[in-house]
Amino acid sequence: MAEPLRIALAGLGTVGTGVIRLIETNCDMIAARSGRPIKIVAVSARERNRDRGVDLSSYAWVDDMQAMAGRSDVDVVVELVGGSDGPALTLARAALDAGKGFVTANKAMVAHHGLELAELAAIKAAPFAFEAAVAGGIPVVKGLREGTAANALNRIYGILNGTCNYVLSEMERTGADFDEMLVAAQDKGYAEADPAFDIEGVDAAHKLAILAAIGFGTRIDFEAVRTEGITHVRASDIAQADALGYVVRLVGMASLDDDGEESRLLQRVRPCLVPFRHPLAAVTGPTNAVVAEGDFSGRLLFQGAGAGDKPTASAVVADLIEIARGQCGAPFSVPVTALRQCAPADPGQREGSDYIRFTVADKPGVLAEITAAMRDAGVSIESLIQRGRDRDGGAVQVAMVTHEGPERCVTKALALLEGSENLAAPPLVMPILKD
Amino acid sequence: MAEPLRIALAGLGTVGTGVIRLIETNCDMIAARSGRPIKIVAVSARERNRDRGVDLSSYAWVDDMQAMAGRSDVDVVVELVGGSDGPALTLARAALDAGKGFVTANKAMVAHHGLELAELAAIKAAPFAFEAAVAGGIPVVKGLREGTAANALNRIYGILNGTCNYVLSEMERTGADFDEMLVAAQDKGYAEADPAFDIEGVDAAHKLAILAAIGFGTRIDFEAVRTEGITHVRASDIAQADALGYVVRLVGMASLDDDGEESRLLQRVRPCLVPFRHPLAAVTGPTNAVVAEGDFSGRLLFQGAGAGDKPTASAVVADLIEIARGQCGAPFSVPVTALRQCAPADPGQREGSDYIRFTVADKPGVLAEITAAMRDAGVSIESLIQRGRDRDGGAVQVAMVTHEGPERCVTKALALLEGSENLAAPPLVMPILKD
Repeated sequence: MAEPLRIALAGLGTVGTGVIRLIETNCDMIAARSGRPIKIVAVSARERNRDRGVDLSSYAWVDDMQAMAGRSDVDVVVELVGGSDGPALTLARAALDAGKGFVTANKAMVAHHGLELAELAAIKAAPFAFEAAVAGGIPVVKGLREGTAANALNRIYGILNGTCNYVLSEMERTGADFDEMLVAAQDKGYAEADPAFDIEGVDAAHKLAILAAIGFGTRIDFEAVRTEGITHVRASDIAQADALGYVVRLVGMASLDDDGEESRLLQRVRPCLVPFRHPLAAVTGPTNAVVAEGDFSGRLLFQGAGAGDKPTASAVVADLIEIARGQCGAPFSVPVTALRQCAPADPGQREGSDYIRFTVADKPGVLAEITAAMRDAGVSIESLIQRGRDRDGGAVQVAMVTHEGPERCVTKALALLEGSENLAAPPLVMPILKD
Repeated sequence: MAEPLRIALAGLGTVGTGVIRLIETNCDMIAARSGRPIKIVAVSARERNRDRGVDLSSYAWVDDMQAMAGRSDVDVVVELVGGSDGPALTLARAALDAGKGFVTANKAMVAHHGLELAELAAIKAAPFAFEAAVAGGIPVVKGLREGTAANALNRIYGILNGTCNYVLSEMERTGADFDEMLVAAQDKGYAEADPAFDIEGVDAAHKLAILAAIGFGTRIDFEAVRTEGITHVRASDIAQADALGYVVRLVGMASLDDDGEESRLLQRVRPCLVPFRHPLAAVTGPTNAVVAEGDFSGRLLFQGAGAGDKPTASAVVADLIEIARGQCGAPFSVPVTALRQCAPADPGQREGSDYIRFTVADKPGVLAEITAAMRDAGVSIESLIQRGRDRDGGAVQVAMVTHEGPERCVTKALALLEGSENLAAPPLVMPILKD
């Protein structure tokens, strides 16, 4: 059998130790599939003496992880430290610059610096792979890069954050409000002590930017992702959606809109109303799911565990096997020089239906003001329901679903209503996912 | 850009013309992803002058498709003729023997002769790929071969036949019986005029044998697939399952059972009861879906269109892109010499719950006889429902769900009841899919 692929592992948290366990547990099978053994030669982490439940004695300990990039006994550096910049980025640059392969689960770094790293990898002809950066154990980077390679994709969308999906589907199951279910998620280990990155949609936005770049062959543009989290979704919204035949999910959605002269990229993370019959409606708990719609393949769904030490380790080692086979392709599906620069699309041009919830004072004339604003902005109302006083006291909830129309009209209607004394809280708009 | 990959296409039915349309429509994108153009140079079919809606004038017409294997201007032969043996197999052998790449959508041929062809491909160092042979446009061959490559898989199962899934989910939706929905499927083009291969489970068995070989790294063994179709499933079974919290789906299931000394492979295609909450329960119509359970990845689901000209073309061209990139790996995930020979597992050892439906004479003592047979065979009954006379006249339906236990006990109970005058029809056993 050929020479082993020699790995240096930076970061020994749950994912790092998961990778060690996986490589030890399945070493024979991995060697058979790789055509050669995959061998960890060096490891590095902040604390050397912490008990991690794995035996590190057969690996060289490296105090300064940056030194890994310079080791002549290392073929691939695996970075599981995290953080979009700082030591992780320094290590990525150093490893690729030294011509070594670089594998990472770091979605923030790939979202912010993926293009630069792919350029460096191309110059050095060094493998650069990040299956684990998107949707944990689901092989969706490979799915988009290779599985749908023959297709022009129309849309890529999905449930990209397990914390949000757990909270929303538990709100749905129990009828409880957001705050209560967030605490439940923290208790179960599905949410961090500081959950902001997850519940504000930033984590999903990182993943969406990566998927869009791969699926559309565009230069990654995380800054252009319009992101909205789930903190404003109320139990009453979920009940209302249910009555209308929908569930609420945080959906990351990317589409390439052709405005005649050039293609523009729309990237958004938002809570959406998903029809009961849509496969994403059945995705509950911390599961992730990605849909890719190809012009020939039709709608493809990839679903599985979006996080966790073992699924993430599965994705990291899949990348290593590919590198060991010598089959690691362009990180973003086409050579980095062929990636297109797409300007962000104007979301106002999106044609669709929206759910809009107003929290209003319970007095005469409120509905008249809202419906007049809709009329003046050209928004056509399909259904409207006014519910009794909510638990906050005097305010009343008015929910409506619009007929399909350009999003800019809804934006205009809300602008007309801005500052109205009748509104007790900012309205919440959730698009209805088109089947 | 590098030299084009030159293709000869045998078979110009709906899939063949779909491949031509796809390569013409997305040629620039395919070239960008392949690193070189993919160019059709020759085509062959039985009738030359049929109007297929595509312009064939720029391709060489080959009267005898076997001649394609000998052409010096061809790198890869794509076979879309069909049939497990005959001309398709002759062409496969000739193409690989000539050192050409060989791509096929022919599940019957791969199920029967995939091992022989993989051996020949290995000897000749010729690419051999068949993504389109399983589940149409879903990249599940790649998903199992590469996406889950780091995992030991526990089970591979799924909905592998769109005709059966359409019929079963329409029976569920409408309450109609099998025969009526089969005609509806034929009207919609989801079932062939002669539907035997589909409804008897043979088509699903072909795909299951291929997935099992890839996922478990075993020598493909189609003969060992125990296959049962959906022709005996009645509307009343589906209603009964619904009342118990299940839907009925034709499930292909493969698992590697360790009996201490050696691994044995269980491969089965059977109608099963699928819990409402399981993702396969949400798969309706002609859609396919495959679940792979890895020891690290956990449960992964791949879902999409299981047939049709465009999805199948998407899979064929994905294989061609991979070959153009020079990244085509071992067809069954490990080198053919490393594939294990696994004896078939004894299905009697399966531990699980079953749904059993008896059609019995409506007279005293029937239930006593059935329950006594269950007791004597060691089958524990969880629930039992006797329904009124069915439409056939005097017969009555008795449905039960067993507690979890070895399948051999159920088999024994049915053997004890064989020949009983109280049974008006052979019993139907459907296993309950474990979540």
